[in-house]
Amino acid sequence: MKIKVKYYLLGLLIAGTISCKQNDPNTSGNYTSQLNDPLPSWNEGPTKTAILNFVEKVTDTASTDFVAIEDRIATFDNDGNLWSEQPLYFQLVFAMDRVKAIADQHPEWKNTQPFKAVIEEDREALAAAGKKGLLQLVMASHAGLTEAEFNSVATSWIESNTHPRFNQPYNHLVYQPMLELLEYLRANDFTTFIVSGGGIDFLRVWAPEAYGIPSHQIVGSSIKSTYNYKEGKGVIRKIPEINFVDDHGGKPVGIHQHIGKIPIFASGNSDGDLEMLQYSDSNSLPSFQLYLHHTDADREWAYDRESHVGRLDKGLDEAHAKGWTVIDMKKDWKVIYPFDLD
Amino acid sequence: MKIKVKYYLLGLLIAGTISCKQNDPNTSGNYTSQLNDPLPSWNEGPTKTAILNFVEKVTDTASTDFVAIEDRIATFDNDGNLWSEQPLYFQLVFAMDRVKAIADQHPEWKNTQPFKAVIEEDREALAAAGKKGLLQLVMASHAGLTEAEFNSVATSWIESNTHPRFNQPYNHLVYQPMLELLEYLRANDFTTFIVSGGGIDFLRVWAPEAYGIPSHQIVGSSIKSTYNYKEGKGVIRKIPEINFVDDHGGKPVGIHQHIGKIPIFASGNSDGDLEMLQYSDSNSLPSFQLYLHHTDADREWAYDRESHVGRLDKGLDEAHAKGWTVIDMKKDWKVIYPFDLD
Repeated sequence: MKIKVKYYLLGLLIAGTISCKQNDPNTSGNYTSQLNDPLPSWNEGPTKTAILNFVEKVTDTASTDFVAIEDRIATFDNDGNLWSEQPLYFQLVFAMDRVKAIADQHPEWKNTQPFKAVIEEDREALAAAGKKGLLQLVMASHAGLTEAEFNSVATSWIESNTHPRFNQPYNHLVYQPMLELLEYLRANDFTTFIVSGGGIDFLRVWAPEAYGIPSHQIVGSSIKSTYNYKEGKGVIRKIPEINFVDDHGGKPVGIHQHIGKIPIFASGNSDGDLEMLQYSDSNSLPSFQLYLHHTDADREWAYDRESHVGRLDKGLDEAHAKGWTVIDMKKDWKVIYPFDLD
Repeated sequence: MKIKVKYYLLGLLIAGTISCKQNDPNTSGNYTSQLNDPLPSWNEGPTKTAILNFVEKVTDTASTDFVAIEDRIATFDNDGNLWSEQPLYFQLVFAMDRVKAIADQHPEWKNTQPFKAVIEEDREALAAAGKKGLLQLVMASHAGLTEAEFNSVATSWIESNTHPRFNQPYNHLVYQPMLELLEYLRANDFTTFIVSGGGIDFLRVWAPEAYGIPSHQIVGSSIKSTYNYKEGKGVIRKIPEINFVDDHGGKPVGIHQHIGKIPIFASGNSDGDLEMLQYSDSNSLPSFQLYLHHTDADREWAYDRESHVGRLDKGLDEAHAKGWTVIDMKKDWKVIYPFDLD
């Protein structure tokens, strides 16, 4: 496969460069639930219409664009596409917290980067550690743990930490309009998958409940595992070696490995998703490509071509060139988060 | 992970050592479909009762053994467990046919083992090529092909070849009682998976239709893939490098990677499945382990501890020691294949 290890956790450990205005709940005050509307949090307009039209035609047995149920594969990136990703990938916050929590067991970290930088909260040194350093942090948050131990550690982190801007648990920062889209696709016999550059083990802890997507329909990056049988008990343990990087060209490969079919619906928000969208667009069946453009600094964040987290540059050009559908978050979404509905 | 590459396709290229009596359709003459019996092809007895009792208790909300739907994961080995595997793994027959079909494009094979042996139908030389040689054959049947090309080649092989003993297409040699078991589990909200030492790409071509298991619920061995984007088309192509060997300790690792949950129901027929059954048995939830013992030389084949294909030796001892359920094919099954029902 010769996938180049394109380290997922790209730069920007420094939060300050991104605007963090407080959320104004009034901006979502015009939300009204509409009967018979499968996408009530989406404003009327070409984006919503394009989605509805595509689903209608591929599920219409009388249409030449009809697609059999077993081929109705929909793949969604996660970070910045189903939940927020600013100012840091949430999994990176988890990894940094984990490094701090177990630093006592690793006295050598006091003098080893990037661990030293995390312990000392030295943002400059963290930024200097680059991609390799970030990957080391994520590995350190998994390695040595058994399957059950990792699940317990990650569950407990998700349950006891909140996002600094919204003061909400991280798993509440999922996008209400995307939850509706997932549900709408499933109601039309699509099988929905997450195909994320983020860690598969971390996702499986909270994503099934958040999105209604079972753990076996989650594809992500991973470190390796060993299986050991001792005293009558078989145990999976994570080891600090890269197994698979599910980003850029890794996404089509990950889809091929886990799903074995080319998606007819692919949704992402960054250049890391471009290959997945191109792969989907190469399907001989009718297909739909969807990019989420972060345009809403008031209710979420606004970033694209220059952002270190979730950069959308080449992807935006390709979307325009190919006529893919682009969600303008500010225009197209009535609300951002489920808690905006309250 | 440091999985040792335990080459799946173990020895025995030589068919002659295994008895191949003609199938006698009369032995299945006592088959009668029973209303309200979810397993009509299973004879009454302790095996059938054990299966029914397990499914009843884990789906009974009043039982202390109740298991939530999302944890009802059932994993099935394929070769010799859901379909026959004698006298050669069927995928190996496919690989050998493929080598012969493309030998013209590989003049070097005339003088290279194990290809030379396949072309010359030299069974002794084939046997001498050992595990490494067998793996080379399987790789040669995939490598260089795109995803679409491989699917087309494998589909065409499945559609145009028959098993020498039964004169039936290979995908008709699936076990009727196991089809009923899969359906019964799904009717009780289990998610059913194939976890096979065989090649995942080959399985995905015919297994979804044969077993009602979608392609993303198939876990198997694989060679690597590359993704390339050329002239506006994104294409997956197989390359001749081992990606994953889903056998022995690889099965729990494969389950962890693809499913992310420990099965509560695990079914296999050989020592290569032992680790999967032990892993399932280590589940903190109630679990069920099932071994299929090939005891029926008249209707199928009889083999266990001494067989090169599908050896069941350690597994049989462990099953007895742990009280796992063992299917005695001859005693427990009214019919073997769906075509026996005709």
